[in-house]
Amino acid sequence: MPRIPSIRLPHDAKAGPTKPEVRAVTLSKLGLTPADHFVEVGSCTGAVTIEAARRAGRVTALERKPERLEVTRKNLAANDVGDADVELVAAEAPEGLPDDADALFLGGSRNFEAVLDHAVETDVDRVVMNVSRLEVAGRAVEAFRDRGILDEVAQFQASHGYELAGATSFDSDNPVYLVAGGAGDDEGSGDEDAEASGVSDA
Amino acid sequence: MPRIPSIRLPHDAKAGPTKPEVRAVTLSKLGLTPADHFVEVGSCTGAVTIEAARRAGRVTALERKPERLEVTRKNLAANDVGDADVELVAAEAPEGLPDDADALFLGGSRNFEAVLDHAVETDVDRVVMNVSRLEVAGRAVEAFRDRGILDEVAQFQASHGYELAGATSFDSDNPVYLVAGGAGDDEGSGDEDAEASGVSDA
Amino acid sequence: MPRIPSIRLPHDAKAGPTKPEVRAVTLSKLGLTPADHFVEVGSCTGAVTIEAARRAGRVTALERKPERLEVTRKNLAANDVGDADVELVAAEAPEGLPDDADALFLGGSRNFEAVLDHAVETDVDRVVMNVSRLEVAGRAVEAFRDRGILDEVAQFQASHGYELAGATSFDSDNPVYLVAGGAGDDEGSGDEDAEASGVSDA
Amino acid sequence: MPRIPSIRLPHDAKAGPTKPEVRAVTLSKLGLTPADHFVEVGSCTGAVTIEAARRAGRVTALERKPERLEVTRKNLAANDVGDADVELVAAEAPEGLPDDADALFLGGSRNFEAVLDHAVETDVDRVVMNVSRLEVAGRAVEAFRDRGILDEVAQFQASHGYELAGATSFDSDNPVYLVAGGAGDDEGSGDEDAEASGVSDA
Repeated sequence: MPRIPSIRLPHDAKAGPTKPEVRAVTLSKLGLTPADHFVEVGSCTGAVTIEAARRAGRVTALERKPERLEVTRKNLAANDVGDADVELVAAEAPEGLPDDADALFLGGSRNFEAVLDHAVETDVDRVVMNVSRLEVAGRAVEAFRDRGILDEVAQFQASHGYELAGATSFDSDNPVYLVAGGAGDDEGSGDEDAEASGVSDA
Repeated sequence: MPRIPSIRLPHDAKAGPTKPEVRAVTLSKLGLTPADHFVEVGSCTGAVTIEAARRAGRVTALERKPERLEVTRKNLAANDVGDADVELVAAEAPEGLPDDADALFLGGSRNFEAVLDHAVETDVDRVVMNVSRLEVAGRAVEAFRDRGILDEVAQFQASHGYELAGATSFDSDNPVYLVAGGAGDDEGSGDEDAEASGVSDA
Repeated sequence: MPRIPSIRLPHDAKAGPTKPEVRAVTLSKLGLTPADHFVEVGSCTGAVTIEAARRAGRVTALERKPERLEVTRKNLAANDVGDADVELVAAEAPEGLPDDADALFLGGSRNFEAVLDHAVETDVDRVVMNVSRLEVAGRAVEAFRDRGILDEVAQFQASHGYELAGATSFDSDNPVYLVAGGAGDDEGSGDEDAEASGVSDA
Repeated sequence: MPRIPSIRLPHDAKAGPTKPEVRAVTLSKLGLTPADHFVEVGSCTGAVTIEAARRAGRVTALERKPERLEVTRKNLAANDVGDADVELVAAEAPEGLPDDADALFLGGSRNFEAVLDHAVETDVDRVVMNVSRLEVAGRAVEAFRDRGILDEVAQFQASHGYELAGATSFDSDNPVYLVAGGAGDDEGSGDEDAEASGVSDA
């Protein structure tokens, strides 16, 4: 069974892209709109960069490894992202982080506490972090909580069907933790802001 | 922990909305663009309708229960979906299905074989069905396979953190099966179409 | 991280043994005691055979492939199962099924309806079937239900940690369906029988 | 669907028993034999105590809350555990821990670092800890690793079927982390010891 496609990633970074389903959930939590400046730490394959470039008005993607940034650049070029305003920055965050991000995604855990500190200082509205390792997930939740920006912790797991002797057997992706929050939550956002960023269906 | 919001659903249908994470994955599989006519069978709370209305050029939502269609209508009105072209139809599919859908979502299993027959006849490009019950999921996969439109089967599970004695315990949503495919797969779509609907990152 | 051991399986059958965690749950559902005659359909690697031989008074293991039965025999010999009364039978069930089983395990789905018919006819007290494929799981549940012997359906998934850069990443086993029931349920078993086979902690 | 039973737990402790499937996996990791002295920290409902009493030669169950210890006692009395040698101790571990345990189970995380220290000092062969909270699971793995006794980390999830409109819907238990290891691993155990405690099928 060929899986239903979303974006083209002809170029490969060693770490592998965020899986499509995790990416979909991550992007739904980020709730990007054309009014947003989206900042990504660790763009790697560029899968999130591409999808964000289709939603946010402005994208800044940081990547500390030049060869990975090159992969981001090539994969971005292989997809139609319209006339998106995307800046690729060779830097190890928190170095190089802009001060006007509306939404921030941490694809990895490197320096995450310093990145979160910067997010708090610059009042980033929505922050989402994906973590695959247990101890790091625990520390990430604590770091969000300690900074007063924790809104949500979730674990996701997808299993993919393949045909085996005429029926469907499954291959499971590993579980991924998603930690989400935002420095701007208690900033007295009025009804309009709430509507712009979406309001809970809980 | 308040969960990160996405859409407003002030009005309630008994069956409960598709969970936000399942909705995010479902919508990513549907890959809606402004060029698409999206058709939904069983709009219920309207959660998928609202998100589809923000992406597709045209939305037709069928719902056999009038009181549920009213909930769809009210929730749709409570969200900003721009000037989306949305038609709500009180009908039990396959009755009332338009013949020019590009993407079709089955939120429930009622009459699903007849709905799939119609999707094949009218050459619907992308079809996604969500199923929660085991036997029905098995029959759905068989129905997609029998019609030659099966592309993907996935199972998805999300667990949500809540604070318990200062740390994060989880509450699990039930697993959901997602069956996806499309009648238009082997229709010789050129490169441009492939790009428009996205091409695999597998 | 070396996983905590349970039994020796030096000899390999192509299909791979039931995973240790699924085996543990399966055996707990079977609730074997020295009073039981346990019958297994598809002994394969022999993993379940060995653990059953340590619990049940008598074990009959059927395997239609002679080379797999040889693997069962060798792995059985490599483990201490005391003076267990184990009979290995080269037969394709329902051929070769004894008429006095107390507990029956179906490790695969081959001929499962005929095997279940035999279980009903011979009044087998506990029947457990493991299934990995979706459509087959659905049909198995229906087969148990149609025969009036369905007690329980469960899905299990285990993820195993491995060290990655100093922390724990996970590798997931595929989900497994477990269907359980028994022909003897409504046979008016008294309190003593109930106690022998265990009584619910639900 | 009534679930297949295992033990009787007529008396209730507030925290709820370890779920049957998690208990089955936990006991399989502990690999108890009549030669073992099994020690449990936090016996609570007594579900693990009862099953351990059927396998180990000797059981010592610690519980810091007297009313819970009373529940353990009553539930133990409601099950046939033969002439098992079970001692119930009202103590908050590490207080009251015996020095000759072969296998140790931590059902909760209270004082777990001190309990693990005692396990290392007294050379406990097998140690299993169940954790449900994320941050605690991360710290538990680190505590096992720091003491050089980490063998295995697993995450386990069970979903239970119930009948909904003639087919099977699922209700998911929350995921549980299982951390396992043992101080006696590198103690030069000969082949016989290895066989007694079981040797890997990995």
